Amino acid sequence: MTIDFSPPDDVAKLAVRVEEFVHDVVIPVEQRRRGMVHDGPDEIREQLQQAARDAGVFCPQAGREYGGAGLDLRGQAVVFERAGYSLLGPLALNCAAPDEGNIHLLEVVADEEQRKRYLGPLARGEVRSCFAMTEPAPGAGSDPRALTTTATRVAGGWRIDGRKWFISGARGASFAICMARTSGAPGDAGGATMFLVDTDQPGLTLERDIDSMDQGLFGGHSELVFDGCVVPDEQVLGEVDEGFAYAQVRLAPARLTHCMRWLGIARRAQDIALDHVTTRQAFGARLIDLGMVQQHVADSEIDIEAARALVYRCAWQLDQNATGADAVHHSSMTKVFVAEAVWRVIDRAVQVCGALGISEDVLLSRYLRDARAFRIYDGPSETHRWAVARRAARRRSTS
Amino acid sequence: MTIDFSPPDDVAKLAVRVEEFVHDVVIPVEQRRRGMVHDGPDEIREQLQQAARDAGVFCPQAGREYGGAGLDLRGQAVVFERAGYSLLGPLALNCAAPDEGNIHLLEVVADEEQRKRYLGPLARGEVRSCFAMTEPAPGAGSDPRALTTTATRVAGGWRIDGRKWFISGARGASFAICMARTSGAPGDAGGATMFLVDTDQPGLTLERDIDSMDQGLFGGHSELVFDGCVVPDEQVLGEVDEGFAYAQVRLAPARLTHCMRWLGIARRAQDIALDHVTTRQAFGARLIDLGMVQQHVADSEIDIEAARALVYRCAWQLDQNATGADAVHHSSMTKVFVAEAVWRVIDRAVQVCGALGISEDVLLSRYLRDARAFRIYDGPSETHRWAVARRAARRRSTS
Amino acid sequence: MTIDFSPPDDVAKLAVRVEEFVHDVVIPVEQRRRGMVHDGPDEIREQLQQAARDAGVFCPQAGREYGGAGLDLRGQAVVFERAGYSLLGPLALNCAAPDEGNIHLLEVVADEEQRKRYLGPLARGEVRSCFAMTEPAPGAGSDPRALTTTATRVAGGWRIDGRKWFISGARGASFAICMARTSGAPGDAGGATMFLVDTDQPGLTLERDIDSMDQGLFGGHSELVFDGCVVPDEQVLGEVDEGFAYAQVRLAPARLTHCMRWLGIARRAQDIALDHVTTRQAFGARLIDLGMVQQHVADSEIDIEAARALVYRCAWQLDQNATGADAVHHSSMTKVFVAEAVWRVIDRAVQVCGALGISEDVLLSRYLRDARAFRIYDGPSETHRWAVARRAARRRSTS
Amino acid sequence: MTIDFSPPDDVAKLAVRVEEFVHDVVIPVEQRRRGMVHDGPDEIREQLQQAARDAGVFCPQAGREYGGAGLDLRGQAVVFERAGYSLLGPLALNCAAPDEGNIHLLEVVADEEQRKRYLGPLARGEVRSCFAMTEPAPGAGSDPRALTTTATRVAGGWRIDGRKWFISGARGASFAICMARTSGAPGDAGGATMFLVDTDQPGLTLERDIDSMDQGLFGGHSELVFDGCVVPDEQVLGEVDEGFAYAQVRLAPARLTHCMRWLGIARRAQDIALDHVTTRQAFGARLIDLGMVQQHVADSEIDIEAARALVYRCAWQLDQNATGADAVHHSSMTKVFVAEAVWRVIDRAVQVCGALGISEDVLLSRYLRDARAFRIYDGPSETHRWAVARRAARRRSTS
Repeated sequence: MTIDFSPPDDVAKLAVRVEEFVHDVVIPVEQRRRGMVHDGPDEIREQLQQAARDAGVFCPQAGREYGGAGLDLRGQAVVFERAGYSLLGPLALNCAAPDEGNIHLLEVVADEEQRKRYLGPLARGEVRSCFAMTEPAPGAGSDPRALTTTATRVAGGWRIDGRKWFISGARGASFAICMARTSGAPGDAGGATMFLVDTDQPGLTLERDIDSMDQGLFGGHSELVFDGCVVPDEQVLGEVDEGFAYAQVRLAPARLTHCMRWLGIARRAQDIALDHVTTRQAFGARLIDLGMVQQHVADSEIDIEAARALVYRCAWQLDQNATGADAVHHSSMTKVFVAEAVWRVIDRAVQVCGALGISEDVLLSRYLRDARAFRIYDGPSETHRWAVARRAARRRSTS
Repeated sequence: MTIDFSPPDDVAKLAVRVEEFVHDVVIPVEQRRRGMVHDGPDEIREQLQQAARDAGVFCPQAGREYGGAGLDLRGQAVVFERAGYSLLGPLALNCAAPDEGNIHLLEVVADEEQRKRYLGPLARGEVRSCFAMTEPAPGAGSDPRALTTTATRVAGGWRIDGRKWFISGARGASFAICMARTSGAPGDAGGATMFLVDTDQPGLTLERDIDSMDQGLFGGHSELVFDGCVVPDEQVLGEVDEGFAYAQVRLAPARLTHCMRWLGIARRAQDIALDHVTTRQAFGARLIDLGMVQQHVADSEIDIEAARALVYRCAWQLDQNATGADAVHHSSMTKVFVAEAVWRVIDRAVQVCGALGISEDVLLSRYLRDARAFRIYDGPSETHRWAVARRAARRRSTS
Repeated sequence: MTIDFSPPDDVAKLAVRVEEFVHDVVIPVEQRRRGMVHDGPDEIREQLQQAARDAGVFCPQAGREYGGAGLDLRGQAVVFERAGYSLLGPLALNCAAPDEGNIHLLEVVADEEQRKRYLGPLARGEVRSCFAMTEPAPGAGSDPRALTTTATRVAGGWRIDGRKWFISGARGASFAICMARTSGAPGDAGGATMFLVDTDQPGLTLERDIDSMDQGLFGGHSELVFDGCVVPDEQVLGEVDEGFAYAQVRLAPARLTHCMRWLGIARRAQDIALDHVTTRQAFGARLIDLGMVQQHVADSEIDIEAARALVYRCAWQLDQNATGADAVHHSSMTKVFVAEAVWRVIDRAVQVCGALGISEDVLLSRYLRDARAFRIYDGPSETHRWAVARRAARRRSTS
Repeated sequence: MTIDFSPPDDVAKLAVRVEEFVHDVVIPVEQRRRGMVHDGPDEIREQLQQAARDAGVFCPQAGREYGGAGLDLRGQAVVFERAGYSLLGPLALNCAAPDEGNIHLLEVVADEEQRKRYLGPLARGEVRSCFAMTEPAPGAGSDPRALTTTATRVAGGWRIDGRKWFISGARGASFAICMARTSGAPGDAGGATMFLVDTDQPGLTLERDIDSMDQGLFGGHSELVFDGCVVPDEQVLGEVDEGFAYAQVRLAPARLTHCMRWLGIARRAQDIALDHVTTRQAFGARLIDLGMVQQHVADSEIDIEAARALVYRCAWQLDQNATGADAVHHSSMTKVFVAEAVWRVIDRAVQVCGALGISEDVLLSRYLRDARAFRIYDGPSETHRWAVARRAARRRSTS
């Protein structure tokens, strides 16, 4: 046991394969689509995923029984950063949100039958899924306990009623994991249950796609209405009333894998910026020879290194114990830092590229739009800061 | 003579009218179009401008002989901020870029015939125009002296050859003011000339519209190609080889009027944020009662006040002497501060509005995209900072 | 009435005289004392103030009956910035804290006899004073209503008991204006009264001088104990129980005059930095030719301009109505911005001067220490931000 | 081989001992001296170091032959952070600058005789030393190649002439490692040689102690004059003309160990802040329950975690290869981030402690002063950013 930053050999080798795959196969598709991912036809996903299977890089986070490499979070940190170097990389590898988080959740919580029916096809890339938790005001948002969607007992099952919005990937998903209140009232800390709901289930309607600043997520974000949507008991995921606990199982790692993927985009933005400033001239010098440009470049280098070091640190923590207080604390801190660092890195890249950075001739402005959303979803920075401060105060009070 | 921040009475009254006009007439159109301005049909412009004429707020910056109120820059500061409260307000008042800057330039430089043929119709809103200076690398950008487009002497006129990009408002414009090199070589400090070029002139092609992060400017941004485009002598604007000097006539005030309009959008963003945080609850409190939200709100208040104070200061400076060293110095400082402050204000508004801020259900994300571009056009922050530092050093050396 | 940034002629002339006086007379003394002001012997004050009288620049804010020029706040803004260019300038002009604020308070609230006995000698520089409001925790601090010092009725007067700390200028003062609770309990919004207490009054002890980061204030900061200190009725300042209202009379302008003086130090720091970077070489270039240095210099230029514009704006507001809601709002915003901007300016100056900036061979490190305190006294930034946000929310709710 | 953040067992145990030692023995001394370290009498050092020997925590970075634990840089990262929790901790453990860096340099470069005469006594705490490289302008500073001090060949040795300033720990040191130019001219990349010079050597004068913002370094900073100071050949350290290469041997690790120690002070500041905000009330709430305070606390938590992650990352890199390009790159990035993060952490701690933070009743203001200097020494942030940007550009160009 010693402080170490080298991944195991097999992870290092997989990382190289992913890097090549993203460079050779994924980026050309991303360029062709000019970074527009949210409204892509499913053929794109199918072709990219088939290519990933052929390259031996498909769904590396899933257990071996689902065709994956069973990477722990440290392994994922190394590999997902490389997948994230293109907006389409995670989709190709089947490690994009929300499916990646759902695969993880199902691996931990689903029963045998549910694994067969939902997890297997999802991990193999045969279907897509979504996670239906967030609600419009005054429902569940930064504060999940505000949950208002209800599931009421009916014979042999539950009847779900409520409205969910910003449900990523809902368009085109074959099932949703829906969080609904089975007991208590909005504001209570308990009483939520998770349900597996097929999207063709009567009573579930995709009401609209939400126009959103970010467009880098396959399927975009939609608003769903559950109106008398009845699901049988066997589609309860885990135990009744344990939904908030399962949400924790999903949230801390999902937050962290988001950071890993976004770190890839940050590196991409920095590379685009470097390519520009090392070739473009202004005022009789290469841009990279101007001090203010150097400052942008250096600050982004540092942001990327610090972000990666925190991601590794947090992955290590979660690999020790994924649901302990330290895990949650580190995942909050890492999320805040990485979301804001990625944003700064892309913003600086846009700036040093000037008009080109604003145009869609390079993809920076698209990345910037997507990164803006990341400072809000998975918990806005403010919510995490609040939680971090409270835990720090508690630590000191009891030390 | 004393330090004073009150506008004259007539300006104050006009400001109230503009405020009401924007609220009653312009914002409903902006909402209906969800902030998409760049690809609007000309009917929108015509209807809004007619309404502005009816409301007595049309083209207030133009001289009275062109139907305006002849506002000086301080008057413009008061009025344009209110026009800018909606992305469509400046278009409605005919004080949007690039026409507003071109009207000013023509008022200063154009000869009698040119005023009749170009300035009159432009000030009256009968036509639109564009300003064709910026070129793709390695041409004129942050550094105008890199100008590569050439104008060569031919019998009775000049033949223009070159490529211009990010030419705002070109789509739909009836004429362009084109900057071309009539002597010297790229990198030289002189040798540029301005030409009035009708957009239906043979040899001038609008090659493409540039997809761009910002979409708040009517007509968007386009790439123009001048290929053997011949214009007669009477379409030289001002004197041959004096183009860079005229560019200064246009640039400092145009930069400042941009700040005025953007200040309006910043105030709008702050108002949207305030409406949200004073009504929305989270964690058992109104958002506005949470300290981190208060910090965002307060910082935006302060940014807006500081921005406005600098805009007034700079407007006063330019009203004393629009082309002196102090004017340029203040216009650089004001541009940097306001562009960055507006960006911060909108970014904070997005943040406190959470998912709603990212959606296009409110217009914040659209404002954010547009404000991003403003940190680059009219001189990126870095270029202005460089100039500001050099002037500061010079002032101190000679004091 | 029009937006204007020029001071009246007489103020402009006075400003020039102050500039020369500070340059010729004050700065040599400041250099000789290496910026150590807090523990200076009274001879320094007497000599500097006599020189100021001789130069016709003494106590310009006081009314003409007290030998001053009766400057309004806009006039003070112009003049105090120049006085503040040296840490000792305000002392020389008798416009330093806390005497300047006390002079203002007494001009507004004191009765005839009190004016004769306290205001006159203070305005003429014959004595010094202090303002005894702040208490150690859990007493009056950011939140004045927490006031715990009591004044109890005794025959013909009041008996004061309590502890005050960070009382600036107490060492050497001949009287204190003491805030004590005459009714209600800590936390109540009313019930405070102001008392004029001679420092040689029995029952008042200067317990200790507080070692503090800032050392630029004559007399430093001390801890005072009132223990059965009895003062006669005629030393009640204004009305009983109206102390919090009078505090407002003092606080908003005092906060603003602090900003004016600090703006002077910011300019000084920038000048020291400019002198250094325009003469010192590194890596084969003058420092000022390096982009990152230019960025520091430019950011400080902009900070200074924005700070001054806000100070003028706020002074104008207070000159219209010194105790209205707008006055308080602007004084909070200005205080936050200026305190933080001054801090940034000095910090950048230290940075570009490198080791020299850290040494006391130049006075930058001393200015930095003093400016640090200004982000806390007169209300920490956080308290003002909180107030600004609440007022912004109220404005929008009622608009 | 896998990503890991746990130190080896023996290091973990040593870290616990150091933590207890600092808490029980060192902090009481620091409090008693109110953080004034620079002018401490040598008895303090001797007593503290004896206590450290007794506690088994003395000079843990030195090789076992010198009584240390032979910690690699990762081990030092774990232990020095705990030592640095008090300004006096590193002195007590004999791992403070500049001795710690000199011990390392001598372990790598000194010959047998020099190890006996200089390294042994230094590692055992019998003497102190200093490192005489920096010169006043226009000599060696951020840019070491500007070295002007010369060493000229004389019979059997070298004659050193020149002026050095900001030489930390010179007062009280028994020897200096002096960098002087043996060939070439100021600006040349080579030609420097290191000399071991006893401080009682004729021709070496300590001209003055420099008053400086930071006062946390034992012996302070002094200005030394070498005037015909002759040293024999056996006091050349390493090879003639190889001084710049040896400087690299010292600089990257020394920079990093500074970061480790400063991280300790940052944690200390955060703990002081937490103790304050969890006990102090304002506006009817504990300070920690106010959102803006939470933001400060959370940002400091994150800064500390990111700083530590970078320190570990860099230590790991240097433990692989201490002088490779990656090592230098990471040590630059880590230095910039940690120096600025530590500064922010202490600054926030001061802010949330209010007047108390400014007073010297707690030690925060002292830490702030010391941390300010760290953004400049060991290379100012700007110099490192410049180097980081250039290396990033090179990496991308060749990738």
